[in-house]
Amino acid sequence: MKLTISKRELNEAVQHVSKAISGKTTLQILTGIKLDVTSDQVTLTASDIDTTIQAFIPITAANGKEMVTVEEPGCVVLPAKFLVEIIKKLPKETVEIEVGEGFNTRIKSGRTDIELAGMDPQEYPAAPAVDDELTFRIAGSKLKELIRSTVFAVSTNEQSPILTGVLWNLDGARLKLLATDRHRLASTVAVIDAPEDMSFHNIVIAAKTLNELVKIISDQESVEISIGRNQVLFNVGAVHFYSRLLDGNYPDTTKIIPTNFKSELDVGTKAFGDALDRAYLLAREEKTNIVRLQAGEDGAVEITSASSGVGKVLEQLEAEKFTGDPLRISFNSKYMLDALKVIDSEQLHIGFTGTMSPIIIRPGDGKESLYLILPYRTSN
Amino acid sequence: MKLTISKRELNEAVQHVSKAISGKTTLQILTGIKLDVTSDQVTLTASDIDTTIQAFIPITAANGKEMVTVEEPGCVVLPAKFLVEIIKKLPKETVEIEVGEGFNTRIKSGRTDIELAGMDPQEYPAAPAVDDELTFRIAGSKLKELIRSTVFAVSTNEQSPILTGVLWNLDGARLKLLATDRHRLASTVAVIDAPEDMSFHNIVIAAKTLNELVKIISDQESVEISIGRNQVLFNVGAVHFYSRLLDGNYPDTTKIIPTNFKSELDVGTKAFGDALDRAYLLAREEKTNIVRLQAGEDGAVEITSASSGVGKVLEQLEAEKFTGDPLRISFNSKYMLDALKVIDSEQLHIGFTGTMSPIIIRPGDGKESLYLILPYRTSN
Repeated sequence: MKLTISKRELNEAVQHVSKAISGKTTLQILTGIKLDVTSDQVTLTASDIDTTIQAFIPITAANGKEMVTVEEPGCVVLPAKFLVEIIKKLPKETVEIEVGEGFNTRIKSGRTDIELAGMDPQEYPAAPAVDDELTFRIAGSKLKELIRSTVFAVSTNEQSPILTGVLWNLDGARLKLLATDRHRLASTVAVIDAPEDMSFHNIVIAAKTLNELVKIISDQESVEISIGRNQVLFNVGAVHFYSRLLDGNYPDTTKIIPTNFKSELDVGTKAFGDALDRAYLLAREEKTNIVRLQAGEDGAVEITSASSGVGKVLEQLEAEKFTGDPLRISFNSKYMLDALKVIDSEQLHIGFTGTMSPIIIRPGDGKESLYLILPYRTSN
Repeated sequence: MKLTISKRELNEAVQHVSKAISGKTTLQILTGIKLDVTSDQVTLTASDIDTTIQAFIPITAANGKEMVTVEEPGCVVLPAKFLVEIIKKLPKETVEIEVGEGFNTRIKSGRTDIELAGMDPQEYPAAPAVDDELTFRIAGSKLKELIRSTVFAVSTNEQSPILTGVLWNLDGARLKLLATDRHRLASTVAVIDAPEDMSFHNIVIAAKTLNELVKIISDQESVEISIGRNQVLFNVGAVHFYSRLLDGNYPDTTKIIPTNFKSELDVGTKAFGDALDRAYLLAREEKTNIVRLQAGEDGAVEITSASSGVGKVLEQLEAEKFTGDPLRISFNSKYMLDALKVIDSEQLHIGFTGTMSPIIIRPGDGKESLYLILPYRTSN
């Protein structure tokens, strides 16, 4: 294997695929990035088994610019940790890479001459296969918004692995994402450009994957998503992002979402969020982050928090509208603040069904997002 | 105690003094910020005993703006952790503070009403006294430059407490700062506006203090420094920054700095630093960060590093000038890179006296800074 390649393109590809590398892998070969050079293109691959990222560099760019000169096709696996740092620091615009005896690799740029112990590409696991797949496209900005609106609510508890992912469902061109950690839930819907009769259910994608994915999607790009039996493939420009689907059945959450409320509260998102944020500063001194919310027919809203030995906070604001029974309920203020952070709407609509039933938060702008928080049972 | 105060001024003062608070204090009273209200001014104090910071808010600003309305003078100590977060998040431009029974304190702003358990100011340690002091002024930008150029070289080993500080000496209006951790040394000199006959020696100020101090100095400000028997006071605008001087005798370093060299190398700072940075990427895989430097009469400079099982880096560059014996020396590349980071000069002058004698780095712009690195003895 011998080639000359644009430093800029190589660096971009290395940075993209390196996001799949896990610091915790026990397989030596997975600490490396695989370079595959053919007469058509250069392919870089990195993987932690669950997630695999591939980046492609064409020999000639769309604008006719030569990006790669291949003298001899071939394949090698190079240490990712070092590659990620060194490529961007090379002195010249082009890089020469040559693989010799025993995968010993020479990287040259200007007067920098590096020798790296390469690894045998035969040992590298095969790229994942996506079979029986359903394929649709979505705008990058819309996909990022869907992920951002839900992923914060996943469980971090590895005891319930299925809840560490986000649930995807497609029905009648409506793509719905949902996440829950049993204490709170976030869900959102986007209408996408897919055939009416295309559908899938119970597809669960790891939050870790989605968090890495949003980093490489630009708002302008459109993303092609292929959902197979065990794998999902996100096709983002010249990057292929594979992720193993999480095994298991996602719990049915439809029954826990109340549709009738005893009290309903409309408030300005900023006023409510700012007041809650101040109450949280004391609430967080107690590990439960508890605040108490009170509201009555006159529309006066009170938020209180207390930490023994430190003090208490009382916040007052006016509801834009309040209907139903007078309210007195306690909840984890951190969960509410997390939901408020991803709501862009200026108004909130909050529904209550009792001190032990879920609180439902919806943005006032008509978006189909829904946030649920379980109240906290307190003695008073 | 009862007053109304500008949120902006109070917040700024709280943020400044809070830098003295230590998360590790075992004294409950030192987790607080002391507020002292007289008819002239409001004084905030925070301390970890070694460092004490005071900020002053006048009743009326220099531009005539009323910043404080005092209804009743008094004193209280309030929990710093909470104060630092809450003051900046208050909803209105003014804050009302009232201390009641048992130092219970009420903080009001708009419709936010906070009660805090205050502490007894009688328990708060007295502000440090600076006696027999010498006082001089220095421009903020110059002081920051002096600190930045030396403080990185202090020891982090608490076994030699005196080396965790920076040594200050003043003689003939020349202020000299020096730091060493026994493996490397940094020193720099500034000519200041002080009487020719003013002098002090063996003044050692904790690096921790200096690192906090630079955060509150603006380039435009002039800083008044008073050096007393046990304390130094930095007077920065409306902030007083006290620090206990470190006890002990700083080792005499004059003898270890060679003045005659066997070889001397002039190189461009950027070219040398970039090459070293790349070599460091492999060198750091071995804990010693070792690189080898070779140079000969023809001015060809080679920097090499190697990590067993990973690979090696060879960097070549041209000296601007090389005189003396051919050179072959090993050193800790991280130490050299640390020194290069604070050298603004485009050229470096490096002197060598042998493989076991200190390497001396000086900026090429005539500044009186000096950096010393002990070479590393290698088997080949």
